[in-house]
Amino acid sequence: MNTQNGDALGVAVVGAGYWGPNLARNFQASSMWRMQWLCDLDEDRAKRVLGNYSTVRTTPSLDDVLNDDSVHAVAIATPPSTHESVALAALDAGKHVLVEKPLADSYAAAERIVNRADELGLTLMSDHTYCYTPSVQKIRDLLADGTLGDLQYVDSIRINLGLVQRDVNVLWDLAPHDLSILEYILPEGIRPLAVAAHGADPIGAGQACVAYLSLQLPGDALAHFHVNWLSPMKVRTMLIGGSKRTLFWDDLSPLQRISVYDRGVDLTPREELNLEDRRAASISYRSGDVVAPALQEKEALRGVVEEFADAIRTHRAPRTDGRAGLRIVDILEAANRSLQFQGAVVPLRGAR
Amino acid sequence: MNTQNGDALGVAVVGAGYWGPNLARNFQASSMWRMQWLCDLDEDRAKRVLGNYSTVRTTPSLDDVLNDDSVHAVAIATPPSTHESVALAALDAGKHVLVEKPLADSYAAAERIVNRADELGLTLMSDHTYCYTPSVQKIRDLLADGTLGDLQYVDSIRINLGLVQRDVNVLWDLAPHDLSILEYILPEGIRPLAVAAHGADPIGAGQACVAYLSLQLPGDALAHFHVNWLSPMKVRTMLIGGSKRTLFWDDLSPLQRISVYDRGVDLTPREELNLEDRRAASISYRSGDVVAPALQEKEALRGVVEEFADAIRTHRAPRTDGRAGLRIVDILEAANRSLQFQGAVVPLRGAR
Amino acid sequence: MNTQNGDALGVAVVGAGYWGPNLARNFQASSMWRMQWLCDLDEDRAKRVLGNYSTVRTTPSLDDVLNDDSVHAVAIATPPSTHESVALAALDAGKHVLVEKPLADSYAAAERIVNRADELGLTLMSDHTYCYTPSVQKIRDLLADGTLGDLQYVDSIRINLGLVQRDVNVLWDLAPHDLSILEYILPEGIRPLAVAAHGADPIGAGQACVAYLSLQLPGDALAHFHVNWLSPMKVRTMLIGGSKRTLFWDDLSPLQRISVYDRGVDLTPREELNLEDRRAASISYRSGDVVAPALQEKEALRGVVEEFADAIRTHRAPRTDGRAGLRIVDILEAANRSLQFQGAVVPLRGAR
Amino acid sequence: MNTQNGDALGVAVVGAGYWGPNLARNFQASSMWRMQWLCDLDEDRAKRVLGNYSTVRTTPSLDDVLNDDSVHAVAIATPPSTHESVALAALDAGKHVLVEKPLADSYAAAERIVNRADELGLTLMSDHTYCYTPSVQKIRDLLADGTLGDLQYVDSIRINLGLVQRDVNVLWDLAPHDLSILEYILPEGIRPLAVAAHGADPIGAGQACVAYLSLQLPGDALAHFHVNWLSPMKVRTMLIGGSKRTLFWDDLSPLQRISVYDRGVDLTPREELNLEDRRAASISYRSGDVVAPALQEKEALRGVVEEFADAIRTHRAPRTDGRAGLRIVDILEAANRSLQFQGAVVPLRGAR
Repeated sequence: MNTQNGDALGVAVVGAGYWGPNLARNFQASSMWRMQWLCDLDEDRAKRVLGNYSTVRTTPSLDDVLNDDSVHAVAIATPPSTHESVALAALDAGKHVLVEKPLADSYAAAERIVNRADELGLTLMSDHTYCYTPSVQKIRDLLADGTLGDLQYVDSIRINLGLVQRDVNVLWDLAPHDLSILEYILPEGIRPLAVAAHGADPIGAGQACVAYLSLQLPGDALAHFHVNWLSPMKVRTMLIGGSKRTLFWDDLSPLQRISVYDRGVDLTPREELNLEDRRAASISYRSGDVVAPALQEKEALRGVVEEFADAIRTHRAPRTDGRAGLRIVDILEAANRSLQFQGAVVPLRGAR
Repeated sequence: MNTQNGDALGVAVVGAGYWGPNLARNFQASSMWRMQWLCDLDEDRAKRVLGNYSTVRTTPSLDDVLNDDSVHAVAIATPPSTHESVALAALDAGKHVLVEKPLADSYAAAERIVNRADELGLTLMSDHTYCYTPSVQKIRDLLADGTLGDLQYVDSIRINLGLVQRDVNVLWDLAPHDLSILEYILPEGIRPLAVAAHGADPIGAGQACVAYLSLQLPGDALAHFHVNWLSPMKVRTMLIGGSKRTLFWDDLSPLQRISVYDRGVDLTPREELNLEDRRAASISYRSGDVVAPALQEKEALRGVVEEFADAIRTHRAPRTDGRAGLRIVDILEAANRSLQFQGAVVPLRGAR
Repeated sequence: MNTQNGDALGVAVVGAGYWGPNLARNFQASSMWRMQWLCDLDEDRAKRVLGNYSTVRTTPSLDDVLNDDSVHAVAIATPPSTHESVALAALDAGKHVLVEKPLADSYAAAERIVNRADELGLTLMSDHTYCYTPSVQKIRDLLADGTLGDLQYVDSIRINLGLVQRDVNVLWDLAPHDLSILEYILPEGIRPLAVAAHGADPIGAGQACVAYLSLQLPGDALAHFHVNWLSPMKVRTMLIGGSKRTLFWDDLSPLQRISVYDRGVDLTPREELNLEDRRAASISYRSGDVVAPALQEKEALRGVVEEFADAIRTHRAPRTDGRAGLRIVDILEAANRSLQFQGAVVPLRGAR
Repeated sequence: MNTQNGDALGVAVVGAGYWGPNLARNFQASSMWRMQWLCDLDEDRAKRVLGNYSTVRTTPSLDDVLNDDSVHAVAIATPPSTHESVALAALDAGKHVLVEKPLADSYAAAERIVNRADELGLTLMSDHTYCYTPSVQKIRDLLADGTLGDLQYVDSIRINLGLVQRDVNVLWDLAPHDLSILEYILPEGIRPLAVAAHGADPIGAGQACVAYLSLQLPGDALAHFHVNWLSPMKVRTMLIGGSKRTLFWDDLSPLQRISVYDRGVDLTPREELNLEDRRAASISYRSGDVVAPALQEKEALRGVVEEFADAIRTHRAPRTDGRAGLRIVDILEAANRSLQFQGAVVPLRGAR
């Protein structure tokens, strides 16, 4: 395959359901890509997605895509249970691969995809779209540059009247977004240690429709996630407490998505105090300003397809690589086990 | 003691710290009461609370209060660890008793107070102030009259930069409010079954400063509580999902405190479907109006002192009696045990 | 031209600047239309709008469009000063015409367009997009069916950091949206009587950048509009007071765009009172529920292009026809005159 | 009268209606004052305000108050039409005077009060309570220290379901709050030049119930006020545009009352550009952070009573003196004249 710098890379999108059309639109809008195919078992659906004025080809056959030498990369937006087979076939055909979240429906399957890409020296990227939003990038920066101080707690809420699914619970449906964000903003070397999950299926759907996930983090920090298909209120917020400042992200706010509070509780370590002071209260309160940093307006998925192209061309791992996707699946599997055992704490592989 | 109908009852408030002044103000404003004493070990504090223009007497001595025949009832707003001794002394002196939440600092102590009041035939009331707000009353009504349908989930958030305490964790400090509300709105006969709690002390305060509490309810329903001393954002919300409608309560909203959503997910029970339909999706979505019911403006604590007076006069149990307080302490003790064991599920006494 | 029912109509979009791309996208998405051309003097801009995968043709020449028999209609999204010449040319070539707001840059020009379309029996439609939103449709319905009662006042705010323009003031830029909404929701036969405008140009742009417009309505009702290019806060709200209920529309609210308040002030007419009561206060207050009606999610511009097609096919006036556009220009011209004379009241032509 | 430093001053509150009780509470809470009387023609109302536990005396007779040598100052919270006679009587009795807004019901009456206080060398203070809030103080500071730059526009909204009054329109009822704030924050020497007002009485109350006020300020700046008794939505906001930053004040926001936007439009003056650049756009946009400054929590009325005491003791004019109240009445009178003449521009006395 010829991928010399400056030329657009050929790409095919597989899956024309909910997410595939967004990928197709962004690949077409990027000068780094030349979109060749939109592939779906239901070819009419693919045609409807493209509309009546498009020169992009459609096919129901994955082979058409994989046999096309002008296709350098495949973006997979099919149901999670098919990710492994499509991804392995694409890798075996020598294509770079972008996979929608979650990377696969089990840790074992996700690991096989990661390993195959490694063996073949091909780029494998997880489509963790939120990590490419200006908001999440800003959060990551404010943690990395010390503005927030040490991470103390994360409280995430993602609730909405959602499509209740038969084959996957609400954690697998919604939490990958938030877990991929946490994974992306956590400082180097800090990884969740263990998981506990509580869920309920009050409508009898056969799957947890409301769930809470607690992640133990080093240093007695705690990350907690609320995901819910049944709420008529749409909420997408993340509160990130740090030792210096606390950040609140409201992804739906029309006016102020990120607020950084210079307010909080400080505790003077007892060893720093002399004998008399140790008895006295060593707790103090900060009550400073709130700053809402300016954010760029940019579609995150545009950043995804550009990162994918750049990673392929420069033979480097993308910012959200296959291993990032694998770590999310690790947490989701552990959460399912915790749900089975009524909230029991389950340690993570990555923490072993 | 003479408590004939129509006459004001004499009352003393014990404790002039954070909550006592509110009790004192409301007893003075009610024609059902005649406030006789404000008692605090620090009498100067009591004097400062009353100001320079008051005819109410102060004393540092509980005996002064208990020996005064014009005092029919005592309202206790001292630290939780002292509730048992003050309450038992007041009951033994023949006084009716109102106790600030939590009723006591252990289940055993709370039970002793409840039993003593029973033995002596005196009124014991838990000051669960929130239960007397127009909002909570409306929520209770909408559950009781079937508007919301069966309870599916409760998600409660009470976070704020709070006074970090040395002797009690954030669950004992803040969750009693929300647990008393849950206790009050739950339909007759429905009681929480078990508790799991997750907490963190990222500032090294020696107590959990951030905590999450999950309560299992009958029918695979779930109640979940987030309490937090470290958040610079002040949030006080409760989302109550029902099989017919979902209610959102935002206690800090200046414009719309309660919203009732006629939106949700419906699942047709499989047994009601014929063979062909059972394979098809039996999930449907409602997308109706949102109604914000009109609420009265009334100070809740006024309702507390009036309920206390009326319960004494009519020799009936108050709406939030001692047993209601006891059930809250049961949950708090179980939550502490769950925290010790990293989130293990702990069954409740009331569910045995 | 052949426009038999069932066949898609051919359309060309003229102008590929800010609004043209939205029109182009919606014409392509509608099965009622076959988009033939995107025309712009800067043909490269037109090509960039369509992207690399489109079969739609571009041209810098209006003649190419007007000479094409497959083009039944032309949608004009060029600068307002060019509307008259493009629209008249299109009408003279036998094309139906859709014109972006404002219809023209003067009343005289707008009137010439309206008259020409009438003479030629062609459809002329004003692209008053907001009138095709579910929100405005609901507002119109609630006024028409009597839910709100008689209109008492309208308070509209549309402020945002906007593109300060050299050739047109903020009223001509932003107020057409709100005036077209008012025009659309007002009951049959109720028309504004007179206009007063106040403006300021504190940055020295040579045009009013902040302006307020007051419209006298029959029955001592008042409509008031605030438009502002300088506000960093983005606000788009309309408060519509009625004798029975009041409606608040917040177009940017992620959760609740329309709220209908059953709260207000009632005055018993004095003639309905007997002599004793006339001295007493005859004012009463309603304090009922707030209802947020369910709204469909639909792109308004899709409704515009469908209405345009249907009006052409059924030889009827579109809901927002040329005369509606003319009435908006009447108000804008009167507002400019009022600005010149420091807020003097200027009567409207329509009211004569 | 003996007012040596350190001693509390004696004060009487006249009027126990809506505002008087707030004054009474704050005088009692301040160590700078000794409250002697609450005076109301309806003495029972005064007694009810004080409650059953107060040592403060009541009287229906103003003479009782004025003849009492222990009374150094009188705070007037009676209806506006009585302000002149009560204030003059108090001044003539040698008492310092605090008057609720508006200072009087006409410019002539207000001027007589101001002049009498001057002649007698007594302190006359306007109770412009909002000027003593932490929010307004912060706004004044940010204008004074140049953070906001030059004032460009002010947009104020104060709407709420209000008590429709028979003898005064909504401008006289509500706008004094906002006008006193404007008066207080405007830089030294900058005064409104002229007024235009538009109003409506759609319920037939006999008074404008909805009104808009425009104030011309030097430098083509504009201040605009919306006051409304009929709105079921309660809104209290002020948007203050400056050449450097824009401030938004939402007095009802539970979380963020003041936001300072470093976003806006800049215009490079043409004379600073060379010939080529003058043709190019000289408009640029800033898109910086938003800062919500920390604000103290303090009851404004406490600040009023302390300022009153301090002004008396130090023989200086209070921050909101009688002349400040006089300027507000000047604007209100001009607004009434503008309403009579359908929005005609009326110049202010202060601007002559």
